[in-house]
Amino acid sequence: MAGITNPRETGGQKIAASQVNGTAVYDRAGEKLGTVYDVILDKASGHADYAIMSFGGFLGIGDRYHPLPWRQLHYDTRVEGYVVDADRAQLEGAPTYEAGELDVWGGRHASTIDDYYGATPGTGNAGLGTGPIR
Amino acid sequence: MAGITNPRETGGQKIAASQVNGTAVYDRAGEKLGTVYDVILDKASGHADYAIMSFGGFLGIGDRYHPLPWRQLHYDTRVEGYVVDADRAQLEGAPTYEAGELDVWGGRHASTIDDYYGATPGTGNAGLGTGPIR
Repeated sequence: MAGITNPRETGGQKIAASQVNGTAVYDRAGEKLGTVYDVILDKASGHADYAIMSFGGFLGIGDRYHPLPWRQLHYDTRVEGYVVDADRAQLEGAPTYEAGELDVWGGRHASTIDDYYGATPGTGNAGLGTGPIR
Repeated sequence: MAGITNPRETGGQKIAASQVNGTAVYDRAGEKLGTVYDVILDKASGHADYAIMSFGGFLGIGDRYHPLPWRQLHYDTRVEGYVVDADRAQLEGAPTYEAGELDVWGGRHASTIDDYYGATPGTGNAGLGTGPIR
């Protein structure tokens, strides 16, 4: 599937689904953590529910992936990437999966992620990510 | 980018961004029109604003693509695809682009699409697609 080919030129505030994967992810201190591996969309509403992050071994966990509730990410136009509203200790303790475990995304994953981040989708940012910037 | 590999198994209501492209699109009579070529997401909110449809020459227009406001699409779990809330005459008259023209998605495209479908995003389904099923 070809899709839109130039994500940097999608009008600033927009990005093609075919290009969101690979977008850079930073911590609140501005240090790059990794990239977006995939995004879980609700088919009906078209809303992003979860972002699956690839930290590329940065946290010492090799090829494992971190799903996060979408609300934990904030797009920062200055860095052209997402800032994760959680610190490294929180990410190190978060649920991770091998790629093969994510081939099938189901309610079980969602429950695990929601439990860890302390809120169900749509109830606001009441999770671990609400602490002060360290 | 690998991403989630099995869109049919993403829990029914969810789909990975890496897999939404290629999802089947039907008219209101249940006839297949084509597929989703790409989806334009708002980077900050994570919401799908526009779906770019590929009708694969079905409407006699070869390799041209139809962007539609996301609200014109309704996911139908029975067919595992999207139903377009517009009839063929409306689609035949709608703005289309060659792939190269969509490499850069900008406000100009959005304005053209919003004008044609008769409403701005977020103001509800007040466009051409509100007519009765024929």
